[in-house]
Amino acid sequence: MKTLTVALGERSYPIHIGPDLLKTGSLVADTLPAPRAVLVTNETVGPLYARQLADGLEAAGVTLLDRIELADGEQHKTPATLEQVYDRLLEARADRKTAVIALGGGVVGDLAGFAAATYQRGVPFVQVPTTLLAQVDAAVGGKTAVNHRLGKNMIGAFYQPRVVLADTDSLGTLPDRELRAGFAEVVKYGLIRDPAFFAYLEEHAQAILARDPEALSEAIYRSCRNKAEVVAADEREADQRALLNLGHTFAHAIETGTGYTDWLHGEAVAAGMVMAAEVSRRAGLLSESDTQRITALLKASGLPVKGPADLATDRYLEIMGVDKKASGGAVRYILLEGIGRAFMTAEVPEAVVREAIDACR
Amino acid sequence: MKTLTVALGERSYPIHIGPDLLKTGSLVADTLPAPRAVLVTNETVGPLYARQLADGLEAAGVTLLDRIELADGEQHKTPATLEQVYDRLLEARADRKTAVIALGGGVVGDLAGFAAATYQRGVPFVQVPTTLLAQVDAAVGGKTAVNHRLGKNMIGAFYQPRVVLADTDSLGTLPDRELRAGFAEVVKYGLIRDPAFFAYLEEHAQAILARDPEALSEAIYRSCRNKAEVVAADEREADQRALLNLGHTFAHAIETGTGYTDWLHGEAVAAGMVMAAEVSRRAGLLSESDTQRITALLKASGLPVKGPADLATDRYLEIMGVDKKASGGAVRYILLEGIGRAFMTAEVPEAVVREAIDACR
Repeated sequence: MKTLTVALGERSYPIHIGPDLLKTGSLVADTLPAPRAVLVTNETVGPLYARQLADGLEAAGVTLLDRIELADGEQHKTPATLEQVYDRLLEARADRKTAVIALGGGVVGDLAGFAAATYQRGVPFVQVPTTLLAQVDAAVGGKTAVNHRLGKNMIGAFYQPRVVLADTDSLGTLPDRELRAGFAEVVKYGLIRDPAFFAYLEEHAQAILARDPEALSEAIYRSCRNKAEVVAADEREADQRALLNLGHTFAHAIETGTGYTDWLHGEAVAAGMVMAAEVSRRAGLLSESDTQRITALLKASGLPVKGPADLATDRYLEIMGVDKKASGGAVRYILLEGIGRAFMTAEVPEAVVREAIDACR
Repeated sequence: MKTLTVALGERSYPIHIGPDLLKTGSLVADTLPAPRAVLVTNETVGPLYARQLADGLEAAGVTLLDRIELADGEQHKTPATLEQVYDRLLEARADRKTAVIALGGGVVGDLAGFAAATYQRGVPFVQVPTTLLAQVDAAVGGKTAVNHRLGKNMIGAFYQPRVVLADTDSLGTLPDRELRAGFAEVVKYGLIRDPAFFAYLEEHAQAILARDPEALSEAIYRSCRNKAEVVAADEREADQRALLNLGHTFAHAIETGTGYTDWLHGEAVAAGMVMAAEVSRRAGLLSESDTQRITALLKASGLPVKGPADLATDRYLEIMGVDKKASGGAVRYILLEGIGRAFMTAEVPEAVVREAIDACR
């Protein structure tokens, strides 16, 4: 087991990473003010892992007052589902010291985290992410939210967990495609600020995708450490956190342009990072060989390195708001000066962006 | 104008108290990260004061994107009303820097404050309380919430405003009965921890109730200062904040026993404080003369010093959970060792409580 402490003063908390953690109830129990909790999971993950987690907690003296199984999917991350969670917490007579434990992917963590942040003005929260994406992304940063029909993550709060358990065993049942999509975000951390980590991933991508516990633990640990450093730095430098969006402007265009149906978020981020690299190369910032290393790693990991063939370049620019540049806010891009060296700029000629997208279709 | 700073490190904020504040837009404008806001008020207060506030803000360069008028009353402090506020914020295209300004009593402040705490994970919040109760209570402490059908204030957050404007002019249209009810909470601060303030109130009660701006400002200032000190102390001593509930255990019994219809909260608190004083006197803690001073001040202020005639003593004990004492948690009382000296204890014989309630019916 590896442990990383996210340093936030009084709200600091540990992230434990490795196999066999779900059943080690004491890792959670030791962080709680009272030995009672409510488990929030979904209909996919619950049947697979809730029992193990519950047994471990009970062995450590924690009573589960209720187990709430949400419907699976982003379309259920709504105020209506949140209401159901509040109802169940009240019916279970959960008090201010009763912990909410989220077991599942990003949707479960976001929604249960927001419930924990707001039930009786805040109760203890524990994250047990079961997807690679949630383990490397949601575990750090304290973002919780639900969607509103007029926008994603519009209702939310910053709220830190008491502890995060990233059990690599729970990735055993994750579909290959979702594992790869999570891996795109892992690669992102190397690209933004950690060239040594990028080199590690070039060497160990196949072991990670084969779910080797050692390689997975290392990848999750280094991803979380990088994100924790960015988030901590952000309290001083407002632009640092924006670097976490490398590839995301293009990815957003792909997701919106395809109606959020065919592409997983991580897949769109992979293609988006290639586009950002392509813009950087054409702007004379990134070398030919670095650009190739990026494309090669993503491709070897089974991730897309081109956008959808039927999404026109003009549509990208429209969604990205490039057409609105004249009327106020310039589009800001996250570009690369090298592997591990991302920065933000608004100084990119539209023609370069257009050529880069054209080249990645 | 008097100004009190609530000291909370990075989240410190000023409370401005006095006449003519609503129209002084710069007091708000200077605290905002961007010159735009949405006003949340209710159908009673909006028509009286929204225009003044809006004009003052506009003169200070702040654009109001929308003005939301909620239905008046505690029964509307619900998740459904909250949804309406979110909808309007989104329709107005309020962004992360757009402030939410609450103009009204406790219900508006609680609900708008929770909306501000959770819209896009938190936007700037400004309180403009227009009842005496809200000016001396809600202005300090950062509590925001909505009710759930299974319990009051069950969904909420701690969230601090950027600035509070307690305009004594806005009390000009407050019904006498509500002014008196707010005054009960003012008296409470003196009773808990500030004997000099209690003496000031004995001398100036009539001026305050006649809405003399100078006397009102002083009463509001000293109330807020006392609450701010208690709340700050609470970060170290967990029991300090509980003292703010002097009289509230009995008041809760009156409110519940009468179905929350006939008694205003402050009225129930007045009778409840007399009961707490009566218990203290019978337990040999509070002198006869101090007990009389308390009753005399409340009575002279037109507040009830007895509970409803038709509410049986047994019903009080039942609601207060005294009957459940044997099965676990003992009831804890806030009692007085003197005027300005409240403390908490669980060591009160049931017979004494029973006699005190009997004497106050």
